[in-house]
Amino acid sequence: MEHPLHTILNPKSIAFVGASSNLAKPGALHLLSLIGTFKGKIYPIHPTGKQVLGLHTYKSILHLPGPVDLLVIMVPNTMVPALLKQAGEKGIKHAIIITAGYSEMGKKGKGLEKEINEIANKYNIRFLGPNCIGAVNPENGLNTTFFVIKNRPGHLGIISQSGSFITQTLHYFSNIGLGISKAISVGNQANIDLVDCLEYLGKDPATKTIALYIEGIKRVREFLKVAKRITPKKPIIAVYAGGTEAGARASISHTASLSAKDELYDGLFKQTGIIRAESIIELFDIGLVLSTQPTLNNNRICIITNSGGPGACLADQCERQGLRVPKLSLETQKCIGEITPSISALKNPIDITMSFDYDLLLYKLPKIVLERENIGGIIIYGLFGPMHMREKIESIKNKIDNLPTELLALMDKYCMQACDKLIEFKNNINKPIIFSSLTGPEDPAIKYLQDNNIPVILGMKRAVTCMKALWDYQKIKSYKTQ
Amino acid sequence: MEHPLHTILNPKSIAFVGASSNLAKPGALHLLSLIGTFKGKIYPIHPTGKQVLGLHTYKSILHLPGPVDLLVIMVPNTMVPALLKQAGEKGIKHAIIITAGYSEMGKKGKGLEKEINEIANKYNIRFLGPNCIGAVNPENGLNTTFFVIKNRPGHLGIISQSGSFITQTLHYFSNIGLGISKAISVGNQANIDLVDCLEYLGKDPATKTIALYIEGIKRVREFLKVAKRITPKKPIIAVYAGGTEAGARASISHTASLSAKDELYDGLFKQTGIIRAESIIELFDIGLVLSTQPTLNNNRICIITNSGGPGACLADQCERQGLRVPKLSLETQKCIGEITPSISALKNPIDITMSFDYDLLLYKLPKIVLERENIGGIIIYGLFGPMHMREKIESIKNKIDNLPTELLALMDKYCMQACDKLIEFKNNINKPIIFSSLTGPEDPAIKYLQDNNIPVILGMKRAVTCMKALWDYQKIKSYKTQ
Repeated sequence: MEHPLHTILNPKSIAFVGASSNLAKPGALHLLSLIGTFKGKIYPIHPTGKQVLGLHTYKSILHLPGPVDLLVIMVPNTMVPALLKQAGEKGIKHAIIITAGYSEMGKKGKGLEKEINEIANKYNIRFLGPNCIGAVNPENGLNTTFFVIKNRPGHLGIISQSGSFITQTLHYFSNIGLGISKAISVGNQANIDLVDCLEYLGKDPATKTIALYIEGIKRVREFLKVAKRITPKKPIIAVYAGGTEAGARASISHTASLSAKDELYDGLFKQTGIIRAESIIELFDIGLVLSTQPTLNNNRICIITNSGGPGACLADQCERQGLRVPKLSLETQKCIGEITPSISALKNPIDITMSFDYDLLLYKLPKIVLERENIGGIIIYGLFGPMHMREKIESIKNKIDNLPTELLALMDKYCMQACDKLIEFKNNINKPIIFSSLTGPEDPAIKYLQDNNIPVILGMKRAVTCMKALWDYQKIKSYKTQ
Repeated sequence: MEHPLHTILNPKSIAFVGASSNLAKPGALHLLSLIGTFKGKIYPIHPTGKQVLGLHTYKSILHLPGPVDLLVIMVPNTMVPALLKQAGEKGIKHAIIITAGYSEMGKKGKGLEKEINEIANKYNIRFLGPNCIGAVNPENGLNTTFFVIKNRPGHLGIISQSGSFITQTLHYFSNIGLGISKAISVGNQANIDLVDCLEYLGKDPATKTIALYIEGIKRVREFLKVAKRITPKKPIIAVYAGGTEAGARASISHTASLSAKDELYDGLFKQTGIIRAESIIELFDIGLVLSTQPTLNNNRICIITNSGGPGACLADQCERQGLRVPKLSLETQKCIGEITPSISALKNPIDITMSFDYDLLLYKLPKIVLERENIGGIIIYGLFGPMHMREKIESIKNKIDNLPTELLALMDKYCMQACDKLIEFKNNINKPIIFSSLTGPEDPAIKYLQDNNIPVILGMKRAVTCMKALWDYQKIKSYKTQ
C-alpha cells in the first residue's frame, strides 16, 4: 500500500474548505499559494457557490464531482468534525487540517482532537495536523502555506513541528539557494506524526538529506528505530527546542508537545546518528551543504582566499571544530608560487592577497590542490562579483565624465567565466567545495554558484560548521555500516 | 596635542600616490572610493602629470601646492621609503601605507618595514600600515578602501587587523543596518598600532561601542591598561583568530602577528571586561545592538511572536544563554487575553498565532508588557512587511483577473504605521527591543526599523546572543564602576 504521505504530497486534485476572495483572510492567502504554483486541479468549497479568486466553487464537499486526492481544511475548529464526516462519505482519504484550537489549547481542545481522529479512523482518512501549516512540494507546485515557493526543487526534506520553518523560511531558502524536495508541517501530530514523516522521507528518492525541527517526539521507540535505519543512508539533522524550562513551556502551548530534558534528546540524537544543529539557521546551512555536496573523505581542508582576515578566521575555526588545515607540501607550494602574486601566502591558507584574478582563485588553485594533495574538501573566500563593481561605478557616475566603464563589462564576464570553469571542474571531482562570503545572492556571481549546487555560506564560522557536518556524517556512516 | 588618528580620520586634504585611471588597477579602484564620497580636497600624484579619473594630478609629492593632512600610498613596497622622505620634506605628518610586502613576508620585508618607520620617526610622521586597507569615516566620506560606503554614519567604531573586515563588510553593514562611526585597518602596526586606535576611539564622541578583530596584540600591557579604562564607559567586543595552530599560521603570514594561545586571550578579555564574539558575523550583530540599544537593566526577557516555532526557539535560547523568560503575572495575561485572538498563548512567549495584526504585535503588546511587568527587554518575531505581500501578488498576477490588490496597499500602509508607532514608543522608553527575523532589508518594513535604530537580527539564536551581550555588558559595567 502506498504511504499516505505519498498522496498528500503528490495529489492530482485538492479540495479547499475555507476558501475566500477576501485577501485579508487566511483562507484567501493560503489558497492563492496553491493557485500560484499547483499543477493539479483545485476545487474550492464555498457555501454560496459563488466564484472565489476566479475559480468555480462547490457548495460543500458532498457537491464535489468525485473524491479528491487531498482535502485542505481551514475553518473554525468546531466545524471540522462535520467536514471530516462528509469527506469520509465522499470517499476522500487524505487531509491537511490547518485549523488550530485543539490539544494545544488544553482540555476542551483535546476532546475535539480526539473526536476528529476517531472520525478519521472510522473512514480510513489519514491527515496532517491539526494546527499545522500543511505541506510543500516544489516538484508539483503543492503549497498549502501562506508564503510563496521561490526556489527550484532540491534535495532537502523538512519535517517541522512548527509551520513557520517550512513557510516563513521559503524566502530565506531562496536567499541561500536551498532547494527542498518536500516540506511537511506536522502540527499536533494527531494522526500522522513525525515518525510517519521520517519513514516516508527516508524512502523518498528526491530527498537526500532530512532536516527536523522538534519540540517533542510522541513515539520515541519508533523514532529510534526509523532514524537508525535511515542515517546510514541519508543524513538527518535536527534542532530540538524543548530542552529548557522556557522552551518546554513554549512547546506545550505551541503544539501540545511534551518535551524532555535536553540531555535526553542529545543522547537520542547520538544514538541514532542524527546531527544536532544549534539553531534554525544552522539547520538550513547544514541542510544545504549535506543535500548538495559529496562525502568528505578525510578532514584535511584547504582554504583558498584573497583576503587574509577571512582566511585566518576560516583556519582558526577549522581547527576549533576538529578539522585540519595541513601545511601543503613544499612541491605544491612551489607550484602555486609560480602562478600567484609575489606577496601570496602558500602554506594553507593559500592567500593571493587582494588579487581579483578569479581564474586563479576559483579554478587553477582548487585544481592544483586537489590534484596534488590528499585534501578532503576546499573552502574558498573572496568572490566579489558584478554587484560590487556596479555599486562602485554607481557611486561615482555623477562625479566623473567619460568613465571607461567598458572595463566593468569585461570584469563581469571574466568573473562569470571563472565561475563556469569551477562549476565544470566541480562536476568532475567528487569532493565538497564550500564558499564563505559576506554577500548574498544580490551579487549575481553568488547566485550563479548557488544555482549550480555550490553552497555559499554567510560568514566564516558557519561555512566551517557546514564542512564539519560533512565530516560528522562521514564518521556516522562509516560507523553505522561497519 | 591632537591624536594623530584624529587627523588621519578627519583630513581636509588627501594626496594619493599610486593614482591610476586604469580600472583594472587597485590604485584606480581605491581612489574612486574617495572621489565618490570624500568631502575634502583630493590631490592625485602621477608622474606624467596627466589627469587621472577626471582630477588634476601632481607630478610628485614635492609638486603639491602645500602640505596635505593625509598621504595615501599605494605603490610597490620598495618605492615607499623615498616617498616618505619627500612627504617629510614637504611637511606632511600623516600617512596611510596600503602597500603590502613588509614584515609579513619574512626577513627582507622586516628590514624594509624598519626603514620606513625610521624615516617616519625622523620627520615626525605617524602612519597606519603598511599592509593595511586604510580607514573609513562615513561622517566626512573618507574611504581609502576598495568598496563603497552604503550606510549612514552610526556609532560602532571598528579596529581590525584585517582590512577585509572594514571593507568587504561595508555592503554587509548596509544589509544589517549597521552604522559605523569610524573603521581603521591597522595592518602590520609598524607605527600606529591597535592600542593607539583603541585609545583614540575610546575618546571619540561618535563611537559608542568598539569592535576589534585581533590576530595578535603587540603591546599587551598597554592594551590591558587602555581597555580597562574604556570598558566601564563603552563596550568593547572582540574576535581573536590566532588561538589555534592553523589560526596562528594564517595570522603570521597575514599581518606578521605573533599570536598566543586561546586561553591567554580569553583571560585577557575577561580581565579587561571585553566581550568575546565567536565569529565576525557575531561581532557585527553584537556591535549593532550594543551601539544602538540602551542598557538591559535586568535579564527578564519577554518574547512576543505570531509564530510558535520561532517563539519556542527564542525562549529556549534565552534560557540556554543565561537570560530568563519569566511567566507574566495572571493580571497581565488577562489584560493581554482581552485584546488577542482566542488561540493565543499568553504566559511568555506571547504568541498571537498567525495573526498579522501588526498594531498588536509591534505596539500594543510591547507597551502593555513594559508598563505592567518588570521586564528588561523585548524580542519580537513575526514582521512580514510589504515585500511578502507583493511577492504573493506577483506569483499569481497572470492567473487571476481583477485581483483586488487595493488591499495590498492598505496592508502595507497598516504595517508601516505600526512600525511608526513602535519607533515612537521605543524612543520614549529606555529599554532594548530586538527583532528576530528570517528576512533582511529586502522587506521595506525591516529596512525601516533598521533605519530607525531597531536592530533586526537574522535567526533566533543570534537575536538572543545580542540580548545576552547587552546583559554581559551591564554586568561588566556594574562590576567595573563599583
